[in-house]
Amino acid sequence: MRFVTYRSVVDAAARLGVIEDDLVVDVEQLGAKAGLGFPSTMLAFIDLGPAALAALRQALDDQRGRWPVGAALPLGNVRLLAPIPRPRKNIFGIGLNYVEHVAESARTLDTSKELPKQPVIFSKPPTSVIGPGDAIEHNRAITQQLDWEVELAVIMGRTARRVSEADALAHVFGYSVLIDVSARDNRRAGQWIYSKGQDTYAPFGPCIVTADEVGDPHALDLWLTVNGETKQRSNTRHMLFKIPMLIADISAAITLEAGDIIASGTPDGVGAGRTPQEWLWPGDIVEAGVDGIGTIRHPVVAV
Amino acid sequence: MRFVTYRSVVDAAARLGVIEDDLVVDVEQLGAKAGLGFPSTMLAFIDLGPAALAALRQALDDQRGRWPVGAALPLGNVRLLAPIPRPRKNIFGIGLNYVEHVAESARTLDTSKELPKQPVIFSKPPTSVIGPGDAIEHNRAITQQLDWEVELAVIMGRTARRVSEADALAHVFGYSVLIDVSARDNRRAGQWIYSKGQDTYAPFGPCIVTADEVGDPHALDLWLTVNGETKQRSNTRHMLFKIPMLIADISAAITLEAGDIIASGTPDGVGAGRTPQEWLWPGDIVEAGVDGIGTIRHPVVAV
Repeated sequence: MRFVTYRSVVDAAARLGVIEDDLVVDVEQLGAKAGLGFPSTMLAFIDLGPAALAALRQALDDQRGRWPVGAALPLGNVRLLAPIPRPRKNIFGIGLNYVEHVAESARTLDTSKELPKQPVIFSKPPTSVIGPGDAIEHNRAITQQLDWEVELAVIMGRTARRVSEADALAHVFGYSVLIDVSARDNRRAGQWIYSKGQDTYAPFGPCIVTADEVGDPHALDLWLTVNGETKQRSNTRHMLFKIPMLIADISAAITLEAGDIIASGTPDGVGAGRTPQEWLWPGDIVEAGVDGIGTIRHPVVAV
Repeated sequence: MRFVTYRSVVDAAARLGVIEDDLVVDVEQLGAKAGLGFPSTMLAFIDLGPAALAALRQALDDQRGRWPVGAALPLGNVRLLAPIPRPRKNIFGIGLNYVEHVAESARTLDTSKELPKQPVIFSKPPTSVIGPGDAIEHNRAITQQLDWEVELAVIMGRTARRVSEADALAHVFGYSVLIDVSARDNRRAGQWIYSKGQDTYAPFGPCIVTADEVGDPHALDLWLTVNGETKQRSNTRHMLFKIPMLIADISAAITLEAGDIIASGTPDGVGAGRTPQEWLWPGDIVEAGVDGIGTIRHPVVAV
């Protein structure tokens, strides 16, 4: 299933939907028809666990083509938000998780040439999240080195505390696309949160695709363009630390909760690593995608 | 006023209280008596803004000594939790914010001798928060360098986005005590979240004292003992970046929200900086305090 958070009209409350062909089917309304008390937010739905997912799948099958009145809207008529507009804690970001990106970072940033021996973890606050189409803010007073990083986002499905690598993927709800926008000139004493955690620096969407539908999360092409020109193109098989290891590693010390997001790192091709270096400026359009999940497209605007 | 989050009996829901002498007065029940719809959580109360604070003050004055039945419990009969048991985003930590601690860190950790030119920011997830008396977990498989850092915690009172230093303190709700527990051997490529963000690594309490009652936040003694022996003793006047600057700096790029917490850095005397180095081990008792706010006391336990 492909979950979206959407507004049917500009001022309407955000709601949870599932994409069926070119329709958004409202989960709460579909559930009501089937006598199921489904919630209207992604986090509340994830909290219900696997049984809710099975019940929703059944309800979709039962009602397909005979959607309740008003419960199915053309995708083109709704506004998509980030699938989780407000995460419950900071997004976990993974740095230096693709070999070629480690090399380009060592050439041009202050990171080591050596491959990291353990995942390099940082965070992006909930306030950094924006949804499909929203503007990435460029504040010239703060940065002249605004950069892009396309990433596969992992959405946790249930609490993970000290899980083994073997059990880790059973704790995943699904996957999405996230751009880890980074102001390279805003690192401080090596800490990345100020460079990566600014408002609008986590474009995220367009949907969360459930783990069963994604299949192998380490066989997905991912790419990013700026103004239509390809800057990054790789495949998640090149991750240095694979997703089960990331979940096992983080959850060994920090409890992961349902709805938590892990941005699993970016491949090479970032602006800092190019010769000459390239940065984002107001007027640019950034588009990023992961095959099988979807694409997001964001203008860069001056603030 | 001195706000606490408390349970009246072990299994009861967490509630918001105000300390009056040796009593905890329940805010929601006090408000009900006065015809005021006060909430039962600290975050919801902060969200109400300054008018609620004034109304609560009035209600306390009106009802002092004639507390509604069941609304005032002896402090010794309740269990205090962290004043905000579940922050809405990761706690902002400030590294290297006392001059002597910069020096001791440069001697023994991997940080620079130079004073930072801008605040060094990291984060601690909501899952790291524990309340007064709760155990700090020591996982020998993960760390042999568990360290202490006493800090003044700043609790934001309302949204701060690009506020000036002059306006910054008007955005503060109050202050508390926080221990920035740190596993020194868990830094990764310079990133601190894994070393500072583990479960139980943010003991926090015992109360939030409102800004008006604290007065000058840069004139407070703060101290920490391990097994009764003083390890840290300093005063918040020695902060390198003062609180208005921290708020102005963070909010220039990252929106601060009501209830957000800034742990404003630790003075010298941490275990890593001592000769020989000292670490926390199971069985140790850590106690920390900020004068005018209170003290928290935590056992270290093996897990």
